[in-house]
Amino acid sequence: MHRPRGEKIWFIPDGYIPETSSGQLISHESICVLNTASEDALLKITIFFEERDPLEEMMVVVGARRTKHIRTSSLHKEGTPIPVGVPYAIELESDIPVVVQYSRLDSTQAENTLMSVIAYPIK
Amino acid sequence: MHRPRGEKIWFIPDGYIPETSSGQLISHESICVLNTASEDALLKITIFFEERDPLEEMMVVVGARRTKHIRTSSLHKEGTPIPVGVPYAIELESDIPVVVQYSRLDSTQAENTLMSVIAYPIK
Amino acid sequence: MHRPRGEKIWFIPDGYIPETSSGQLISHESICVLNTASEDALLKITIFFEERDPLEEMMVVVGARRTKHIRTSSLHKEGTPIPVGVPYAIELESDIPVVVQYSRLDSTQAENTLMSVIAYPIK
Amino acid sequence: MHRPRGEKIWFIPDGYIPETSSGQLISHESICVLNTASEDALLKITIFFEERDPLEEMMVVVGARRTKHIRTSSLHKEGTPIPVGVPYAIELESDIPVVVQYSRLDSTQAENTLMSVIAYPIK
Repeated sequence: MHRPRGEKIWFIPDGYIPETSSGQLISHESICVLNTASEDALLKITIFFEERDPLEEMMVVVGARRTKHIRTSSLHKEGTPIPVGVPYAIELESDIPVVVQYSRLDSTQAENTLMSVIAYPIK
Repeated sequence: MHRPRGEKIWFIPDGYIPETSSGQLISHESICVLNTASEDALLKITIFFEERDPLEEMMVVVGARRTKHIRTSSLHKEGTPIPVGVPYAIELESDIPVVVQYSRLDSTQAENTLMSVIAYPIK
Repeated sequence: MHRPRGEKIWFIPDGYIPETSSGQLISHESICVLNTASEDALLKITIFFEERDPLEEMMVVVGARRTKHIRTSSLHKEGTPIPVGVPYAIELESDIPVVVQYSRLDSTQAENTLMSVIAYPIK
Repeated sequence: MHRPRGEKIWFIPDGYIPETSSGQLISHESICVLNTASEDALLKITIFFEERDPLEEMMVVVGARRTKHIRTSSLHKEGTPIPVGVPYAIELESDIPVVVQYSRLDSTQAENTLMSVIAYPIK
């Protein structure tokens, strides 16, 4: 049996899905989750906005001994996705400890650019 | 009631507002704050410089269950903004725990580039 | 005698070796390890995927009072390297405390871009 | 009296001074230090390499209630600077707590790119 590693609650204050892309790469964000355990991890993702109430409890499963690089554009709550071109923030809760990193690729202008952070954990 | 999450004091040593932009994106920095609590968060921001005294206690409110992505160019102390093209550092104090990330978009040259860090918390 | 500094277990959830390069710079990732101690550090690196079992226990030595910037494309397990163009995640275990940073240079499009994080340590 | 904030020992495993620049921006790295205290901070910086002994104890002062964004190309030990185009790592020790962030601007190709991390503190 492999044990879970990391924490159960993680935050990413700077979420933003760029509206446009150019060149061969598509602008996108990824929430990258690593589950080192011998059991699946069940994630609940909540999205906070500047001027309206949160989108709560989008569910994602990360398999045992697997990573999942979640495109934020793939998330939705009863059919409602995260809007593009709007500042937002991310809360991720897992039922077992995991490790979370957030990366954004922006190809709004002709050449792409990357940024990445390890999300902020609550211990 | 939702509880506050994070810490009350955060630091960002590498602040810099680029002087120029090109293309469709404007060079800027954002201090991205997430307030998960059911009450508003009151922030006091202090700016440190290399060769003069700090600009102290610029005030910002982040609503309950909201995020705010604060453009550093929008901050000012009695009408004095943060100067562009000058290295500086940021201290952020909140009356309740919050989570803070800092990102910079630089489009000085034709294509934009991004960098981002989770700010450093005092626990 | 110099003492070891840092932690023994580190994680990087967002691994990805870009498939293509352009211009004078080659797309690559580096796992940058610092060993401050007066003895060598022996690393075991495990690679997690989205849809198959991990590649376990690739071994790397970092000399006493040395840094090593490990290209992920140089790692292999019994001749099997990390595949390019596939999302993965990294676990690094060391027999003595070290400090780990991860950086990626992507030159898929004409101009290169960089991202970097301090890996997430287990304390 | 203002108190010092942060930690006394910080590490940055991924140091690298790019050899070339293009366009209007010069490739460089900055070690950005914030000293919130009412007294000066005295820093000792040690540089670790892949294949030779460290350059030890370069000294830098950061004034009371000031930040300093230290260009790594400005550091030297008895006239010996950090070589360009060589992977290295950084240890920073301060006599009072400070906060440290590391950023790199690379303009090797026509458009510049940025990366940044909060350095890793020993608590």
